[in-house]
Amino acid sequence: MTNPVLVEVTRGAVIESVHRGAVSVFDADGKPVWEIGDTERPVFPRSAVKAIQALPLVESGAADAYGFGNRELALACASHSGEPAHVELASAMLAKAGLDKTALECGAHWPSNHAAEIALARAGGAPNALHNNCSGKHSGFVCTCVHAGIAHAGYVKSGHAQQEMVRDAMQAVTGAAHGVDNSGIDGCSIPTYAVPLKSFALGFARMATGRGFAPERAKAAKRLLSACMAEPFLVAGTGKADVALMQAAPGRIFVKTGAEGVYCAALPELGLGIALKCDDGAARGSEVMIAAVLAKLLSSDEAVAAKLSELAHPAVESRIGAKVGLLRPTAALN
Amino acid sequence: MTNPVLVEVTRGAVIESVHRGAVSVFDADGKPVWEIGDTERPVFPRSAVKAIQALPLVESGAADAYGFGNRELALACASHSGEPAHVELASAMLAKAGLDKTALECGAHWPSNHAAEIALARAGGAPNALHNNCSGKHSGFVCTCVHAGIAHAGYVKSGHAQQEMVRDAMQAVTGAAHGVDNSGIDGCSIPTYAVPLKSFALGFARMATGRGFAPERAKAAKRLLSACMAEPFLVAGTGKADVALMQAAPGRIFVKTGAEGVYCAALPELGLGIALKCDDGAARGSEVMIAAVLAKLLSSDEAVAAKLSELAHPAVESRIGAKVGLLRPTAALN
Repeated sequence: MTNPVLVEVTRGAVIESVHRGAVSVFDADGKPVWEIGDTERPVFPRSAVKAIQALPLVESGAADAYGFGNRELALACASHSGEPAHVELASAMLAKAGLDKTALECGAHWPSNHAAEIALARAGGAPNALHNNCSGKHSGFVCTCVHAGIAHAGYVKSGHAQQEMVRDAMQAVTGAAHGVDNSGIDGCSIPTYAVPLKSFALGFARMATGRGFAPERAKAAKRLLSACMAEPFLVAGTGKADVALMQAAPGRIFVKTGAEGVYCAALPELGLGIALKCDDGAARGSEVMIAAVLAKLLSSDEAVAAKLSELAHPAVESRIGAKVGLLRPTAALN
Repeated sequence: MTNPVLVEVTRGAVIESVHRGAVSVFDADGKPVWEIGDTERPVFPRSAVKAIQALPLVESGAADAYGFGNRELALACASHSGEPAHVELASAMLAKAGLDKTALECGAHWPSNHAAEIALARAGGAPNALHNNCSGKHSGFVCTCVHAGIAHAGYVKSGHAQQEMVRDAMQAVTGAAHGVDNSGIDGCSIPTYAVPLKSFALGFARMATGRGFAPERAKAAKRLLSACMAEPFLVAGTGKADVALMQAAPGRIFVKTGAEGVYCAALPELGLGIALKCDDGAARGSEVMIAAVLAKLLSSDEAVAAKLSELAHPAVESRIGAKVGLLRPTAALN
């Protein structure tokens, strides 16, 4: 099955490039609400499932033990831009468990936020693991280990107790088997598992509603999604799509992007979970797709739908900032 | 017509993302040699045709008047990384015509080479138009204007004598009409025109052989392609695919990438021109495609084909540099 073109990139009056993809929207009872393309095809969710991966941090009691509120939980679910607020908060989380950045095994990279990158260079600095977009998640991992009395060294590896906790949570929430055959290594060195796209839609419907979860898990899931919706900047960063999407209807939209063109999202008021994958892995394609899907699902709220529709039509600009084209969703997303 | 998947991106044992595209290979008599996908579909060539856009610089006599050799002509055909050698040479070209960076209308952006970007920031600097990847092309444009006695102000605009010269060259070489209906504005503010992909394959077969050109144009075309093959670093920059591809068989392979997943190339010894477009605009997809196409066309030279095949299988790495997957061409490129 060939997935349909969901996004067009124009220049002048010509379609210059296109992005294909698949979209799945589920309710928490396991009923598909909207399906586009092949939603059975296995997809690595990458960072789009960080909120599920953070369940052990809350369920283990570590988050409470260290006094983590919305800000820390949002950062634990984040792919952040390495701005000072992100870096400082990750460091503070580690300090609560008596650790520092040397405990992180995610690797270092320059901040993805360009201003933060240039400022770091101008100050004569160099990036460390705290600047890694995943440093909040990894800080949550090692805090969970310390609280549970588990040696944190090697926490990124398959088979380590931390990754077993994460895998158990992922399997329970998505209902899909996470095994060796469908595993890969994520950019931050932890295992990631390719399962059918629709599993993530169902999983986030459950995360948003708690339906089918034990009370403790339902509470932890809602606490994590609420934290992200309360602190969208900490989930992403300046100018990021996830921030704009969540700010379009504060407290009503949860979204999280993942590398290679993935989005997971939830609309608690409708009890819906959403997952999508841009076939070619392009972030720009997936951003237009999720904005268009959310605009459609929230179309009864005209003001919100208008904001989301604007995010689904970003401009293509020249180097002097002239608008020379745009991205737009195709009719398949109407 | 749906173009086939030409590149797969793997993680572990799973295909994570895919890139579709079209490829056209022509000889200079207008005979298609190898066609994949829809090669009639109009494509903006973007920077992949800078060698054709540089014809007026040579044909007008400006290049000779200013003493431009391989280095300057390579930079005039370049999408460079903004490294010091690129920036200094563009500045020197402008100085030959009594101008400086204030004559450039391409806009400024930070060097795409990360080390150059960080070094510029650490030195307290900021980017100017010389760092723009197109500054060599634009320097060639204004040098052409000054030599021809044309006011260079507004040289990026459709209708300016410089852009008319470029359009005339593009139409003559590709045989395709360049009009208002199929025009767009490129990132560096000059017009770009979407014409059938195959037109560029034919055009570069002509550029490489001079077949069908008047003697002066044939000489100028060979001089430009030879300059690029002699100075690949100046056409691109450190670690860039174009450099590795041209260095795989020095003097025998001309390649030039363009934004949104385009490649144009020529193999003078075989009298062939090549053009391809990755549907979704991804550079990584187009780089694997061109490497695989060149490996196939040069398969009789095992050593060269092996180098090109290696470039067609780049690794996907985690942040700590572990190999976690790879990109690979599909059987459609065999």
